[in-house]
Amino acid sequence: MGRHELEYPKDAVNLVKRHDERGTYALETIHGLVNGAQLLHVSFNPPGSPFPVILPMIGQMGSFDRPSADLGDPLDLYLHGYVSARLFNTARGPGAGAGGLPVCVAASHVDGLVLALSPFNHSYNYRSAVLFGHAALVEEEQEKLYAMQLITDGVLPGRWAASRQPPTGAEVQSTSILRVKIASGSAKIRDGGVSDDKHDLENQDATGSIWTGVVPVYSAMGEPIPGPYNKVDLPTYASEFFQEFNQESRENSIAAAKK
Amino acid sequence: MGRHELEYPKDAVNLVKRHDERGTYALETIHGLVNGAQLLHVSFNPPGSPFPVILPMIGQMGSFDRPSADLGDPLDLYLHGYVSARLFNTARGPGAGAGGLPVCVAASHVDGLVLALSPFNHSYNYRSAVLFGHAALVEEEQEKLYAMQLITDGVLPGRWAASRQPPTGAEVQSTSILRVKIASGSAKIRDGGVSDDKHDLENQDATGSIWTGVVPVYSAMGEPIPGPYNKVDLPTYASEFFQEFNQESRENSIAAAKK
Repeated sequence: MGRHELEYPKDAVNLVKRHDERGTYALETIHGLVNGAQLLHVSFNPPGSPFPVILPMIGQMGSFDRPSADLGDPLDLYLHGYVSARLFNTARGPGAGAGGLPVCVAASHVDGLVLALSPFNHSYNYRSAVLFGHAALVEEEQEKLYAMQLITDGVLPGRWAASRQPPTGAEVQSTSILRVKIASGSAKIRDGGVSDDKHDLENQDATGSIWTGVVPVYSAMGEPIPGPYNKVDLPTYASEFFQEFNQESRENSIAAAKK
Repeated sequence: MGRHELEYPKDAVNLVKRHDERGTYALETIHGLVNGAQLLHVSFNPPGSPFPVILPMIGQMGSFDRPSADLGDPLDLYLHGYVSARLFNTARGPGAGAGGLPVCVAASHVDGLVLALSPFNHSYNYRSAVLFGHAALVEEEQEKLYAMQLITDGVLPGRWAASRQPPTGAEVQSTSILRVKIASGSAKIRDGGVSDDKHDLENQDATGSIWTGVVPVYSAMGEPIPGPYNKVDLPTYASEFFQEFNQESRENSIAAAKK
């Protein structure tokens, strides 16, 4: 709406070097890819380890100070720690430093297999984002609750309010939330069809025998399976979300192939 | 068949600390999760950067010295570099050291949303593996070709032989392959149904109003979209693989929920 679209500044850390035409630095795109990912991969260096570690975690972008902020605004990343306590123990520890623990967070979506004549022109359609920042434990209860709702509703919109409320003191206490202050980020998107070199396109043996094109790939949700103590019908907020998820996910993968 | 199942030794690097009952160290399980992942996340520390970096890449476990090795044998991980040249430049550089660049590689599969009464008992069904090792560029042409076939067939079995062969010298030259010598690894698997605390199960307001159960999540492949210069019908090796992939992927997510 006439507003300037915010971008993460390019620097040595976030610059997309290979296929730079596929790179983007727009906050809205990057934050959208993070919020749409069922799983994030979080990397950090545990003190004393020769290797960086990757943990799969769930998380959402948000702003506790300004909850009405848009996806294109500067936001923090909130991560839920149930996957492993290791990251949080590290962030608590002496290696963390004043600004928090340096982390890289990746959000990746595969949209299709691109099958070319030459195996070397095979590719994926994909959308991937990385964020770099400093992670610290959220200590304040109100901010913790804000983040827990954000993350729960990120998995299934409306689920927080629909589940048993309010949280008990023990639940809030025993749950760790990390807030990542974002330093920079970038995204890389490959879409479109198949592409081969001239010498292969002129090779009639090849074009006459090798199938070329795109196979859409998407994430799907199956028929919900009620648990042993379930007593209610699947509510509309859930059934509608699963239906929309499946439709959008499938349509996006086809649209990416046809771009 | 009476043979001892190999495991990565537990140490400070690979130990599953939280929910250790979900952890496994069996090579066969871990290697299977890596080979079944459409995308791997590779983390390393670029020289001079305050942050670790994560790159999404494709890869497969294999043994160039003993190509007939099983999934449960000690194997190397071969990674394809088309996603970014940054990792390879780093592995070439002075920071790499004699043994190669220390990396962590993650392979993660989401199998379902576990929706409980309390938001704090919500979970995912998932299978995730991490490997730690040292990455180095493959220099020898025969090993490069072995890895390229392995990785191409990992995306679509049989595709290497079915695509235009042999590779040109320029293709082999311009493609970078990393070989990761594995130091250790572990996997973590959550399956089964929903589980809540006694006080929630006895809360009739909660059980009478909140849907609980598992929503299977799986990766699907859509109808293949032929490219503009395709002249042939979709071959059987491809159509059968897509069909099997969809069926197994869907059935696995349901089986995980019912365990």
